[in-house]
Amino acid sequence: MHDLSATPTLGLEWLHASGPHSDVVLSTRVRLARNLQGYPFSIRAKPADRDAILSTVRGIVARDGMLKDAWVLPVRELQRTDRRLLLERHLVSRELVNEATGEPPLASALILSGQQPVGCMVNEEDHLRLQAILSGFQPVECWKLADRLDEEMGAHVPLAFHHEFGYLTSCPTNCGTGLRASVLIHLPGLVLTKEIHKVLHGLTQVGLTFRGLYGEGSEVVGNFFQISNQTTLGKSEEDLIDHLQKMVRQVIEYEVRARSILVRDAPSVIEDKVWRAYGILRYARSLSFEEVMNLLSGVRLGLSLKLLPGPSVYTLNKLMIFAQNAHVERLAGQALPPAELDVHRAAYVRQVLAEEEAGRGA
Amino acid sequence: MHDLSATPTLGLEWLHASGPHSDVVLSTRVRLARNLQGYPFSIRAKPADRDAILSTVRGIVARDGMLKDAWVLPVRELQRTDRRLLLERHLVSRELVNEATGEPPLASALILSGQQPVGCMVNEEDHLRLQAILSGFQPVECWKLADRLDEEMGAHVPLAFHHEFGYLTSCPTNCGTGLRASVLIHLPGLVLTKEIHKVLHGLTQVGLTFRGLYGEGSEVVGNFFQISNQTTLGKSEEDLIDHLQKMVRQVIEYEVRARSILVRDAPSVIEDKVWRAYGILRYARSLSFEEVMNLLSGVRLGLSLKLLPGPSVYTLNKLMIFAQNAHVERLAGQALPPAELDVHRAAYVRQVLAEEEAGRGA
Repeated sequence: MHDLSATPTLGLEWLHASGPHSDVVLSTRVRLARNLQGYPFSIRAKPADRDAILSTVRGIVARDGMLKDAWVLPVRELQRTDRRLLLERHLVSRELVNEATGEPPLASALILSGQQPVGCMVNEEDHLRLQAILSGFQPVECWKLADRLDEEMGAHVPLAFHHEFGYLTSCPTNCGTGLRASVLIHLPGLVLTKEIHKVLHGLTQVGLTFRGLYGEGSEVVGNFFQISNQTTLGKSEEDLIDHLQKMVRQVIEYEVRARSILVRDAPSVIEDKVWRAYGILRYARSLSFEEVMNLLSGVRLGLSLKLLPGPSVYTLNKLMIFAQNAHVERLAGQALPPAELDVHRAAYVRQVLAEEEAGRGA
Repeated sequence: MHDLSATPTLGLEWLHASGPHSDVVLSTRVRLARNLQGYPFSIRAKPADRDAILSTVRGIVARDGMLKDAWVLPVRELQRTDRRLLLERHLVSRELVNEATGEPPLASALILSGQQPVGCMVNEEDHLRLQAILSGFQPVECWKLADRLDEEMGAHVPLAFHHEFGYLTSCPTNCGTGLRASVLIHLPGLVLTKEIHKVLHGLTQVGLTFRGLYGEGSEVVGNFFQISNQTTLGKSEEDLIDHLQKMVRQVIEYEVRARSILVRDAPSVIEDKVWRAYGILRYARSLSFEEVMNLLSGVRLGLSLKLLPGPSVYTLNKLMIFAQNAHVERLAGQALPPAELDVHRAAYVRQVLAEEEAGRGA
């Protein structure tokens, strides 16, 4: 069995909030859907096909390139808690680990570079899902990383490509570039000024789409949204990235303006809101994850408006990930019933904030 | 004009929570309604009568006894903010200061001993309202103080007394002993276990009455109640006090039992509740007084259950008084619009709690 505990921050380089606009955009991701020539798509692939695909990829990883010496984590060889950990870090999809049934698909794997913020899911909906993730708002840089990884892969193994349709994918919606670029963005200003629906609706008019933080079908928590391109076909990768960049840059501007309006029109209401959020995180003895997210949203807003001296954005990012269920259980060293989970979560949040406060000499 | 700012804790000796059962009973009060012979009741008294009554009492105060060298504060000579201050300290009645119209009655006064926790309102509904107040649950001791004051008064000036009806009072409901003994009691356990209505209803069956903290007609805030005797006629003072003592002692026992049940059945829920209350008081930037009371109630409960290391009950008592509007304005040195009031109140609460935390080395 693979043990993930040796790598506590596996795949979490983006937490450091070092990227541009990281007070609004937490992270930028680009993923490319690719399939190997000569094998059926995953949905029709036989066990032997899946094994062959994984072996092929392992062979590539062993060579030079961005994935040299990368972690290869076949999901069947991971403990269930580790699979949940990877899910909570958004490094694997629900489909890859098949979390619903608890029986992961055959020969599915996560490949993760130890050197660069890139990785690859193997035998997911497509044979390959190449991924790159960066802190803050960096769609072009992120695309370049993914593109380099794609070129390296393509140099070692022939990819399914049609001169007219472009890259062929299991689901037609991914066909063409196979590209999905997304940003994880925090929009409390637009939510509080009630402009969010107008802005999000505007995005859908220009070929972008949005969802709450937890992916398809889940509700919005903590004013965190994922914005990504809707279409992948009929435009070049550069155009898709450029379009997303322009549109999201506008959303960032709207959000920054909304925040300044809040501070101008209701400074004490906002200040009170963010400090209460901090006070509850700092002292509560039981916290659901959803409440943590909503409170972190308040503190994050306060921080960007300089209403609070701390904690750092890094700490807020860390709490978003490490205060999730599987992470809390990992810290406790055992599975926990829901009520206990909330008590342990609150204890963890308190401890992190108290340590950071002490560090600030607060 | 009299200036109250020289006596910041005027009439607030009970805050020190030194009395018995002070984790449940904040204070015990006894007041005696008395009228001077030969003068019409206040409602019919002419200005000359009211002047004469106040002069007579001034004369007594100048002599020996419990009120020797007492403060004599004619309400017309007080600034409006000082009258509100006295109201918030429950040292004067709304009637005495006629707060509703802002024009205090002629020759009404508060007399307050600097040495003992006793005082007297002059030209209120009755000519005299003798009062004693002690920390915690001390009905007998409190009665003794009021009784001594009564005897001293009676020795200097003939009081209206009827051999059959007892002491005569402006309102027939006070006739007889003229005694009202009351306790200010904190009953969060009974409220949270939903037994409060049963217990309070029981009190009304045995000649006691209750109200929320802010007197007649106002709602309950922060789980604080005033319990007092309903009838004043047909029983001796000793019987009335004894009865109140027995009944309230039972209520205290019920409350203590309810608190232990809460801790047994829902320890983490209670712990979370009290710490959140503390967290909000500690960090909020805007607090209404009602919210402060509700939060202080939570912290007080936590303190009595030893779920929190502090603040002290004294601090909680102090905040109950000093976080009220007039006190906050006094501290700010100016009248404040409502929104500003809540901001100043939150700042004061934060400061007091931060200082106490620092003092504990927390």
